Amino acid sequence: MIEAIVIKQGTITTLKGFYAGAISAGLKTVAGALDIGILYSKQTCTSAGMFTINKIKAAPVILSIKNLSLSSVRAIVVNSGCANACTGEQGEKDALEMASLTAIKLGLKKEEVIVASTGVIGHHLPMEKVRKGIGEIKLTRDGGHKLAKAIITTDTHTKEIAVDINGIKIAGIAKGAGMIHPDMATMLCFLTTDALVSTEFLNQALKKAVEVSFNMITVDGDTSTNDSIVILANGVAGIPDPEDFENALQYVCTYLAKSIAGDGEGATRLIEVNVDGASSIDDARKVARTIAASSLLKAAIYGGDPNWGRVLAAAGRSRANLVESKLDLYIDNICLLKNGTPREFNPDRVLKGKEVLVRLCMNLGNSKATAWGCDLTEDYVRINSEYRT
Amino acid sequence: MIEAIVIKQGTITTLKGFYAGAISAGLKTVAGALDIGILYSKQTCTSAGMFTINKIKAAPVILSIKNLSLSSVRAIVVNSGCANACTGEQGEKDALEMASLTAIKLGLKKEEVIVASTGVIGHHLPMEKVRKGIGEIKLTRDGGHKLAKAIITTDTHTKEIAVDINGIKIAGIAKGAGMIHPDMATMLCFLTTDALVSTEFLNQALKKAVEVSFNMITVDGDTSTNDSIVILANGVAGIPDPEDFENALQYVCTYLAKSIAGDGEGATRLIEVNVDGASSIDDARKVARTIAASSLLKAAIYGGDPNWGRVLAAAGRSRANLVESKLDLYIDNICLLKNGTPREFNPDRVLKGKEVLVRLCMNLGNSKATAWGCDLTEDYVRINSEYRT
Repeated sequence: MIEAIVIKQGTITTLKGFYAGAISAGLKTVAGALDIGILYSKQTCTSAGMFTINKIKAAPVILSIKNLSLSSVRAIVVNSGCANACTGEQGEKDALEMASLTAIKLGLKKEEVIVASTGVIGHHLPMEKVRKGIGEIKLTRDGGHKLAKAIITTDTHTKEIAVDINGIKIAGIAKGAGMIHPDMATMLCFLTTDALVSTEFLNQALKKAVEVSFNMITVDGDTSTNDSIVILANGVAGIPDPEDFENALQYVCTYLAKSIAGDGEGATRLIEVNVDGASSIDDARKVARTIAASSLLKAAIYGGDPNWGRVLAAAGRSRANLVESKLDLYIDNICLLKNGTPREFNPDRVLKGKEVLVRLCMNLGNSKATAWGCDLTEDYVRINSEYRT
Repeated sequence: MIEAIVIKQGTITTLKGFYAGAISAGLKTVAGALDIGILYSKQTCTSAGMFTINKIKAAPVILSIKNLSLSSVRAIVVNSGCANACTGEQGEKDALEMASLTAIKLGLKKEEVIVASTGVIGHHLPMEKVRKGIGEIKLTRDGGHKLAKAIITTDTHTKEIAVDINGIKIAGIAKGAGMIHPDMATMLCFLTTDALVSTEFLNQALKKAVEVSFNMITVDGDTSTNDSIVILANGVAGIPDPEDFENALQYVCTYLAKSIAGDGEGATRLIEVNVDGASSIDDARKVARTIAASSLLKAAIYGGDPNWGRVLAAAGRSRANLVESKLDLYIDNICLLKNGTPREFNPDRVLKGKEVLVRLCMNLGNSKATAWGCDLTEDYVRINSEYRT
């Protein structure tokens, strides 16, 4: 992959023509926390999106899928503090009203607005607060960071990036933290670009980038009802080199996906799992994701315990083609297993950093994949045993 | 299901003709803990077994599958403290030596002995201790409880049962606690019966019973490399009514499976998930197991937080056929959702006991399934971040 130039303190409004804003409408329990925001493109856009494959889809997801199929999208209204999922017909009406109010505010057709929500499932949106909030949001050219703040829930920090490849810029913000497991984006992510690209190309490039980034992260194996990733392309910078564009998009998505994995609820360590030598790309992905998702391995890594048998146990249950006697395993570049046979190693030389590298060489073929996860800590349990109350 | 008569303080040697014993050979770190044992049938037996489908299979599993295919089995030698998994050729030799030593001790052919191991993966068995241990074990008619003690690892108590249906007895012991997830038995379980049954019938009855019991429990989603369940039938009580036998076997397996789920590592609550009205039995199972395995739901239940959206999110990602507007959800018999629409409920009336009942009515068909799991606690993390060291 080509290295993209990362723009210092870049965010989604670093790109010309994009405006954002957010305010505190009282949806989150923390007083004063930003919880509703809007992203807006002054220019008409081409747009593409991907959404959760969970069969329980939140009302805003259903609406956004519909609007993206009807129209190019120019604005996104998003709230945290309430997922508007499992809320029946009322939930659908509320999502539609959010789109309508935003469209009126911005002088757009309501199909040009998509809606995203994140937070607790099964509660109705407090629409009085939402209406007031949407009315009061001020859109500015530097509002991206505020919007990044407004979408986070149990995240400990915002996730933002903007890159430049040969004059074409792509930027993104994301939120994650819990209900994170590869099956489409498993979070909220909004991307902007100034490239002039067709909807078809944008769709295809997004799918490719998501496949190797957001679909390769896991925090807890729970796929959300609200996962949404949307990209708006306003075209002001002209037609990009397709390969440059794809590389830049992959760079941005991978950066944000890794940020989500590393900031998983309660996490203290980012885990990167590299699998190579698999019989097929599908096998490589399965093995990498199953290892990154193993609760036992995640707990061991939290404890700094190189209990590497858990890596092999996870690989073995992934249903990928596998021959035990061909496996080589490295943790933090130290070989623990060669041709399926354990090697002596110094446990003081592994699991010392904030990032852990697990590498499994299957020695069966040429396919490889990388997945990201985080350790499992008492704090994950604490956060999720108290989340609703 | 016919209620079986549960024999007070029953265990696998409650049945005539079965002998067991165990000693402390120093394989476990706790001084004096029983860690190696033998089950022996004085009579020749028919036998059946099921083993992990993990592609990384421990050496004793590979040997036991082979021996069961060659011969009827009359003895089981088992150790805790070391799984003898991921141990290469040396591991295979060690498992074979355990079978041979036991066969010599008991005057059997070595194919008549199967081997089971549980504990940490990737370490070689300390064979000096194992040899000495096997030599010193004393087999007695009341040794079943000692054997039940010798197979547990992080379990907080032994799992034992014996039942009588119309004069035919079936008994079992099991261990579980961690690396527990439906994909074949996911634990060690040894069963005895005095029924006179063919190998074919025994195989088929075991498969049926495992399907609704051990394959429906989960602790952490990690399928073990060592899962083994074996039944020995010595025939002394004569030919059983087939249905009685199947019912008794299902009763014993369900009892032991629930004991394992409720005694999951760090668990404070047993979770039972009933799914009905599914389009197919496969869908019912998928939904029940996915709900029981959700880390987020397990953490919420630990915290006594009826965050029921997590039940629906899990059902939705299970890939089963599902219509949100037809779902009814009950927790502890309180209706939280009717026709996909949330209902007001008093949170003080749910999640108060040691057992939690989650019931999802899909209202699509006539298929149903039950799965069991446990809550996710800080203690699970603590136990598994310190297990190896």
